[in-house]
Amino acid sequence: MTKNLADRLLDAIDEKQNPCCVGLDPRLEQIPPNIKEWAVGEYGGGMTATTEAILRFNKEIIDAVADIVPVVKPNIAFYEQFGSSGVSAFERTVSYAKEKGLIVIGDAKRNDIGSTAKAYADGFLGKVKVLSGDGGFTTKYGFNVDFLTVNGYLGSDGIQPFVEQCEKYGKGLFVLVKTSNESSRELQDLKCLNWGSKERPLYIESAALVHQWGEGLIGERGYSPIGAVVGATHPEQALEIRRHLPYSFFLVPGFGAQGGGAKEVVPCFDKDGYGAIVNSSRGIIHDPYIKGSWKPEEFAQGAKAASIQMKIDICRALKKAGKYPSSWN
Amino acid sequence: MTKNLADRLLDAIDEKQNPCCVGLDPRLEQIPPNIKEWAVGEYGGGMTATTEAILRFNKEIIDAVADIVPVVKPNIAFYEQFGSSGVSAFERTVSYAKEKGLIVIGDAKRNDIGSTAKAYADGFLGKVKVLSGDGGFTTKYGFNVDFLTVNGYLGSDGIQPFVEQCEKYGKGLFVLVKTSNESSRELQDLKCLNWGSKERPLYIESAALVHQWGEGLIGERGYSPIGAVVGATHPEQALEIRRHLPYSFFLVPGFGAQGGGAKEVVPCFDKDGYGAIVNSSRGIIHDPYIKGSWKPEEFAQGAKAASIQMKIDICRALKKAGKYPSSWN
Repeated sequence: MTKNLADRLLDAIDEKQNPCCVGLDPRLEQIPPNIKEWAVGEYGGGMTATTEAILRFNKEIIDAVADIVPVVKPNIAFYEQFGSSGVSAFERTVSYAKEKGLIVIGDAKRNDIGSTAKAYADGFLGKVKVLSGDGGFTTKYGFNVDFLTVNGYLGSDGIQPFVEQCEKYGKGLFVLVKTSNESSRELQDLKCLNWGSKERPLYIESAALVHQWGEGLIGERGYSPIGAVVGATHPEQALEIRRHLPYSFFLVPGFGAQGGGAKEVVPCFDKDGYGAIVNSSRGIIHDPYIKGSWKPEEFAQGAKAASIQMKIDICRALKKAGKYPSSWN
Repeated sequence: MTKNLADRLLDAIDEKQNPCCVGLDPRLEQIPPNIKEWAVGEYGGGMTATTEAILRFNKEIIDAVADIVPVVKPNIAFYEQFGSSGVSAFERTVSYAKEKGLIVIGDAKRNDIGSTAKAYADGFLGKVKVLSGDGGFTTKYGFNVDFLTVNGYLGSDGIQPFVEQCEKYGKGLFVLVKTSNESSRELQDLKCLNWGSKERPLYIESAALVHQWGEGLIGERGYSPIGAVVGATHPEQALEIRRHLPYSFFLVPGFGAQGGGAKEVVPCFDKDGYGAIVNSSRGIIHDPYIKGSWKPEEFAQGAKAASIQMKIDICRALKKAGKYPSSWN
């Protein structure tokens, strides 16, 4: 057994004594005026000013929370919507977070088959071939995120190319199993018949595939780098999924803004208080100065305070459930 | 009833008398030497040379097939893997194809929830807000593809933001229902229990949602712009899905390279020979000079010949099945 990304994640969680993640999902309309003014002053408005404003906002958030949280999670939708310029801001956000010692989850929910899935896997997790000056090829890292979220609806041959890059480059995945939204029940909760007899919901079928994909990759501390997305809004289902996925990390969205509380996320953790990363986006990066008592130009301090509060809330809930990691203060 | 994108697609299919689509999925290693030499000469290697080579390759393909096919389908994975530079090549490929009068399907299989799904929908189908020079906001089209492929695993509240942009901007979707790959059976073929009694496969549950999402948007010629992805490799299942989705276009991948033949795609069409778009990627853009009798520098003529041959094959199969559109030659 060698150290895999799950081991690195567990070490980072231990170091910060915090299983929380800050979602870097900047909403332009909520970027504080001082940042917007700076960007318009420097770049005169338009796409570049917009994406530079987002990047600067992100960097200040990252600086403020890098000592508190082990992980950040930029959702590429908030960047890609601004085309190539936005994707450049995503690339630079990922690099900056990694420079600050953070583990980065690229939230992209990518999915495709065969060589197309491989193109995504190369671009997000591995290396891509590009033309070299002599007419041959050379390879370059792509986005180089640590973990990537993927959608498993297409099945194993859609996921295998990603798993291969995980093995090759020490990366990881979070596969959508049960999402935090209300409508997730429409397909994910459908009762399915498999193996001729057993009847179980689709999210358990998805979890069974995740288990299969990660089985061969379990690291020193008992976790595989092939994790699952399990919404904070479904505690009973989370418990059921946990039973089927003893070796998989859960990425838990839906905390805060989407209604899941600290108590609701406890079933996502194993008995020792590990195995889950709880994400909050708006609640950390925007709400403190929009709904809270911070001034807009104090957004970074607000984010720091909110991420400390989130850590306290989650740790308290873990303690109460008897799941607080024994080596933590 | 007003003309929607499905009407426009049907008109374009009638004009070319061809329900085929060319997949613009350029594989760098297979780009002909003359294009690579040109790019290295102009840009000296690296990411820019790479993506400019891809763009030039695409433009020559588009020029060659624009009179033959009504639709092209770039899969963003083959661009996004090269980061912001690749996304810029995607943007310019979409624009160029639209200038040439082609309908563009952005194959991105995007999926997320709430405001994140809206960010994707704005970016691909609608307009995004960007900073204006006076510190306010202005709006700009994003990628501005006509159709976007999406993954429906997250349910209605993940798809609704896309449907809203379709209504607002005259756009369309193809939702993954049954994909062409071997492993698609793992989840998509699972028998599900719904409504307390009926037992039907997950792909039919997906199809039922697609029907629901498109129901209110049916156009003059009887089709909604909310279509389904149905692989060419499953003719019997296609027939079953067609029964559940009488108003939805099928985007049919898996033709050619993936093993689906002209006969296999016939069940995807309605009785009048409409309602499906059959895609071929490698078989049109790379195979003619790799496996066929064309020289590498004749790749565009090879693509033209292959797209004419595909049209002939599909039309012959439609005729044989008594489904050839009555107004065509």
